[in-house]
Amino acid sequence: MPELRKDPVVDRWVIISTERGRRPSDFIELVEERSDGFSPFAPGNEDMTPPEIYAIRPDGSPANTPGWTLRVVPNKYPALRVEGQLNRRGEGIYDKMNGIGAHEVIIETPNPEQNLAELELSEIENVFIAYKLRMEDLRRDIRLKYVMIFKNYGHAAGATIKHSHSQLIATPIIPKQVAEELHGAKAYHDLKERCIFCDIIRQEVKDNIRVIYEEEHFIAIEPFAARSPFETWILPKEHHSHYEQLDELTARHLAITFKAVMKKLNIALQNPPYNFVLHSAPVQEDQLSHYHWHIELIPKLTKFAGFEWGTGFFINPTSPEEAAQFLKEIEV
Amino acid sequence: MPELRKDPVVDRWVIISTERGRRPSDFIELVEERSDGFSPFAPGNEDMTPPEIYAIRPDGSPANTPGWTLRVVPNKYPALRVEGQLNRRGEGIYDKMNGIGAHEVIIETPNPEQNLAELELSEIENVFIAYKLRMEDLRRDIRLKYVMIFKNYGHAAGATIKHSHSQLIATPIIPKQVAEELHGAKAYHDLKERCIFCDIIRQEVKDNIRVIYEEEHFIAIEPFAARSPFETWILPKEHHSHYEQLDELTARHLAITFKAVMKKLNIALQNPPYNFVLHSAPVQEDQLSHYHWHIELIPKLTKFAGFEWGTGFFINPTSPEEAAQFLKEIEV
Repeated sequence: MPELRKDPVVDRWVIISTERGRRPSDFIELVEERSDGFSPFAPGNEDMTPPEIYAIRPDGSPANTPGWTLRVVPNKYPALRVEGQLNRRGEGIYDKMNGIGAHEVIIETPNPEQNLAELELSEIENVFIAYKLRMEDLRRDIRLKYVMIFKNYGHAAGATIKHSHSQLIATPIIPKQVAEELHGAKAYHDLKERCIFCDIIRQEVKDNIRVIYEEEHFIAIEPFAARSPFETWILPKEHHSHYEQLDELTARHLAITFKAVMKKLNIALQNPPYNFVLHSAPVQEDQLSHYHWHIELIPKLTKFAGFEWGTGFFINPTSPEEAAQFLKEIEV
Repeated sequence: MPELRKDPVVDRWVIISTERGRRPSDFIELVEERSDGFSPFAPGNEDMTPPEIYAIRPDGSPANTPGWTLRVVPNKYPALRVEGQLNRRGEGIYDKMNGIGAHEVIIETPNPEQNLAELELSEIENVFIAYKLRMEDLRRDIRLKYVMIFKNYGHAAGATIKHSHSQLIATPIIPKQVAEELHGAKAYHDLKERCIFCDIIRQEVKDNIRVIYEEEHFIAIEPFAARSPFETWILPKEHHSHYEQLDELTARHLAITFKAVMKKLNIALQNPPYNFVLHSAPVQEDQLSHYHWHIELIPKLTKFAGFEWGTGFFINPTSPEEAAQFLKEIEV
């Protein structure tokens, strides 16, 4: 059973997930990609993943057979498991609980060679709708406090399988960085009675030096305190705390915005590896007037992450204004 | 002038350091190491670095000439600069200040081929003493609140120059992760009137399942909530909040401990890339009964850092107990 452990000094929970029982030597070159083009996520290989939780099957084909255009399956090597009790307990000064949660894979396309940004708008829209449906389903398990959705694209960003996919991890705790965001946004709202993200959007539109793309429902900016070159945030212009509030219309606009942003980044940076993380309010919470869901997208360009990862201190050699000027000029 | 910018939502300062004015294409393969074996830090190349701030010259040779065994120089491409005023100011809802601080390089050996762990004990001791001397010197500048010392070893850990060196960044703010540690340790001390790190040491010695090395003055453990496989902490057994309290005797013992720990990690993991970060109390603070300096060492084995970096959420596939058992058995 995986364990969730809390650092005794800082408020950081870590998943210790050791079921595969590795020897130290197994870590060396652990994440090399297979180079033979084989994909365990391709149609025909449905038996290589656990049975599907959700799929889009325009041809009406039966579950776990080819014919799908999008497929959500449990991760074959889950970091957390749905079965069991949390069993919160201490071990001297330390705190831990069982690794209860969910770990799913959203296979975004049947085509092992296409990446998310290359898909048709309707396909990207389906991916964004799938995120929402999975969040709505998982929130019915009241043990699960947060649903984290993220995507690693490219080997340098941590992707071990090339076939385009995102991941979902549902946790019985609020991840530290989300808790800090909620806390900071709440403090601002207590002081000003306004959502800080709405204020950021207003200032960015007015200043117009860090906006790289804007359409009817979404805006994409290089954030003022960008941690790394070309860090990009996508925010809905209307205030919504929960990603689950996305409807078909806004999912379409999110797809348009995502495709435009990725096109700019891919032209500027030659198809960079990237991580994106969906930041949304905790699934068990009601609407929050102080929080505002958004996507944080970080191209993996520098290798400095090691130090920054260990300190929480970031050095960014490109100002967001420079990056924005460059990206803004790229026509999409 | 570099800028320090604060994220408006979370309490995170970022250095925006753009003096080299890069184009996006400059980021692709930015950090490839030179493979021709040339070292700008080697004896004879003293004019390739800014003039030295501190050096050990057993042969009495003049500054900035060969003959040294250890040399501290300003970083040629500093993230922060000593000259100027902080000039704290707002920009609408955003906060920033000038990038005042120091960025230095500790060249640990004249030999471009030897790494820190391979040096003689007396040489490693000199490195640890150099850290202390630089901290003592920099704390006289009262604008500087924190001195961060870290080492990236190996390309995957962010090292761009192979010649063995550490770095020092002195900042006018307390880095977020340090502030969180101080806050957590203070809260524990308020509750228990004991140092949490002293309590960790006591419990680890008693449990004896995560200790990998112990000698008279230092202990090395795999922390309970390790973020990644083989994360290792080295702590002084006696309570000291400030690294600057290190004396010649304890510097020697720290060298012994570091060399033993690195030998174990190098045998277990075949000379892994790693980052280490020295965690010490803010230099302007008096002795703190709630904080306890230590070194956090993280071998770079997995590529998952991208996601974890973006979320503050860690998945560790090796339990610290497994790692400790493996490392403990390696004789040094």
